[in-house]
Amino acid sequence: MHHTIFFDNASSTRTDARVFEKMKPFFMQKYGNPSSLHDMGQEAKDAIEEARDRGAALLGVAAQEIYFTSCGTESNNFALWGLAKSLQDKGKHIISSSIEHISILNPLKELKKQGWDYTLLPVDSFGMVNPEDLAKEIRKDTVLISIMHANNEVGTIQNLKTLAKIASEKDITFHSDGIAAAGIIPMDLKDLGVDAYSISSQQMYGPKGAGAVYVQKGHRLKPYLLGGTQERGRRAGTENVPAIVGFGEAAKLAAEEMHIHAAHITGLRDAFIKGIMDQIKNVKLNGHPQKRLPGNVHISFEYIEGESILLLLNMEGIAAASGSSCASQALKNSQVLLSMGLTPTTAQGSILFSLGKFNTMQEVDRVLEVLPAIIDKLRKMSPLYKEE
Amino acid sequence: MHHTIFFDNASSTRTDARVFEKMKPFFMQKYGNPSSLHDMGQEAKDAIEEARDRGAALLGVAAQEIYFTSCGTESNNFALWGLAKSLQDKGKHIISSSIEHISILNPLKELKKQGWDYTLLPVDSFGMVNPEDLAKEIRKDTVLISIMHANNEVGTIQNLKTLAKIASEKDITFHSDGIAAAGIIPMDLKDLGVDAYSISSQQMYGPKGAGAVYVQKGHRLKPYLLGGTQERGRRAGTENVPAIVGFGEAAKLAAEEMHIHAAHITGLRDAFIKGIMDQIKNVKLNGHPQKRLPGNVHISFEYIEGESILLLLNMEGIAAASGSSCASQALKNSQVLLSMGLTPTTAQGSILFSLGKFNTMQEVDRVLEVLPAIIDKLRKMSPLYKEE
Repeated sequence: MHHTIFFDNASSTRTDARVFEKMKPFFMQKYGNPSSLHDMGQEAKDAIEEARDRGAALLGVAAQEIYFTSCGTESNNFALWGLAKSLQDKGKHIISSSIEHISILNPLKELKKQGWDYTLLPVDSFGMVNPEDLAKEIRKDTVLISIMHANNEVGTIQNLKTLAKIASEKDITFHSDGIAAAGIIPMDLKDLGVDAYSISSQQMYGPKGAGAVYVQKGHRLKPYLLGGTQERGRRAGTENVPAIVGFGEAAKLAAEEMHIHAAHITGLRDAFIKGIMDQIKNVKLNGHPQKRLPGNVHISFEYIEGESILLLLNMEGIAAASGSSCASQALKNSQVLLSMGLTPTTAQGSILFSLGKFNTMQEVDRVLEVLPAIIDKLRKMSPLYKEE
Repeated sequence: MHHTIFFDNASSTRTDARVFEKMKPFFMQKYGNPSSLHDMGQEAKDAIEEARDRGAALLGVAAQEIYFTSCGTESNNFALWGLAKSLQDKGKHIISSSIEHISILNPLKELKKQGWDYTLLPVDSFGMVNPEDLAKEIRKDTVLISIMHANNEVGTIQNLKTLAKIASEKDITFHSDGIAAAGIIPMDLKDLGVDAYSISSQQMYGPKGAGAVYVQKGHRLKPYLLGGTQERGRRAGTENVPAIVGFGEAAKLAAEEMHIHAAHITGLRDAFIKGIMDQIKNVKLNGHPQKRLPGNVHISFEYIEGESILLLLNMEGIAAASGSSCASQALKNSQVLLSMGLTPTTAQGSILFSLGKFNTMQEVDRVLEVLPAIIDKLRKMSPLYKEE
């Protein structure tokens, strides 16, 4: 099989070779259970505590404020549910946004069945939440606000500090889904002023199988997985030591190298966007023109179906996505795009190219070589398209 | 560091080298997200479906009856909660046993807070549930029974087929926590007649970070982690592809080689038990004399503390446990041992040596060389002990 051009880093990233090297001993040599009292247990325990330190350093928080999970989805479920359940005596209203990941939206629906109420804030055509809308929707019984940091589809980065400040002034707990942002853009959660934050290893060149929740000291957090006393009683289950160790290494590398990669990836992104705009008509860049993730290239190609574009790109060895990978099997229209005001037809003709640190300008050039012909071919077959 | 004698296979097993080899490409080459529509996504999807086939083959069930999770604890939480919530319109009474793992007992307590009721069956001095007790405790509103297959501490294997039959005759859903049993003793879940079953990769020489739930076709199962459409909508979150692939390989190896390993391990176990009994006075083997896991050597050493034994063994490079690793940090008395009628003092002087396929007779001999002196030394220091 020829080399795949992987422009789908939003759905999964390649594990960095240094991360993998760090993980390796934990399968066949250092395989103790961190809860065990013997040296091999302690060795595993020390390794996850080192990883916790590194995760905390990446986010600018204290190690004891980090709880490991198995993935980003678990982090979001745990944070939302664990905070909501802890705050229920104060009130049962939650505010979130219409462009959240389904690992936030679906738990909200479940909480609603259990007596909670929630409000989803709208976004503008760039995918931005208006802080005034947030202020307006706060009620006396609002106890929790959850607004994502960077959107996983269109890459829009929210004014998190402003939003968190509004929450803080009303003494409302503020959580943010940072899965698409952490390790990709610099952040200091203490400066941003959020109370809780979800992150995932596989979005930052770490392995699949590890996520984490930051919860500021002083906040209660009801455990979601129940059983043993792992993670200081907040998350039961034997720790996935190799994945957590890998996550820690990925966090360390991100903290050290993020700015270099961001510059590289932004360069690729801007060249790619310019190439598309120059060569293909009737296209639209979705998301915010400036406040966007370095690697995000989300484009609507009018008159054609995203799935068909993906298929033809795939035949050329190019991997891209039509939106959130978690929802992709459902083949439904992206709620994110509809919330931003795109028509269903335009939304369906949208492709997410997500560039990462392993991508090169040669790959961008190669995609720009084949993409215009693919779009042209599909438009010629489209009943919606009239050539100008 | 010298070579550790790892007699703590109940808390974690060494990943088999063949399992690790199988996992390796999924970190840096085949790192696609199984939900992605391109070839790298399909490649990852195919790999987890192959793993599903292998897990199903190990248990004697159909692949579409297997749902992957992140660990045994999640499997137990998911199965118990997912079945209970699906059955709540029929009734809200659950029967379980007093020797279950805390990843069953703690969710039961949580369900109780939410309006469920549960009954814990007693066990005899061998840790066996009496089927008549089960029959007696069934009520009109009993909808779910959860009784573990093999106990993780004392190794007792229940008469699962008899218990499941009682449930089946009353049309009550029967789940079993098979985490300590799967991949270690042969089983055919269709023959056993259970409706649901939990398993974990790390107990069978697979990696940490993967577990599974079997639920027989036709049963409803409410998802526990909410978000994307992974695992046919039953378990959201990006699949931990390397760990699931490793789990599948571990299941395949277990299916092929389990009988060889069981014979080997049983030989080590019996020699080890005999050696202890011959050389050390005032000891008691806990669990069932015949119906026990091949590698389980659970011993009460009268007059002394288990923790002290562990410490001195550890200084000799021998890793063992004082009970369930998930509860070990709490240093409380084992509920399993108390349920079997041990006094708190005897329970506290108990050690679980759990032998696995990588252990050797040389290691057994080495432990038998140092253990009598350790016990003797501790007893001499013990105020409870009077030398005969």
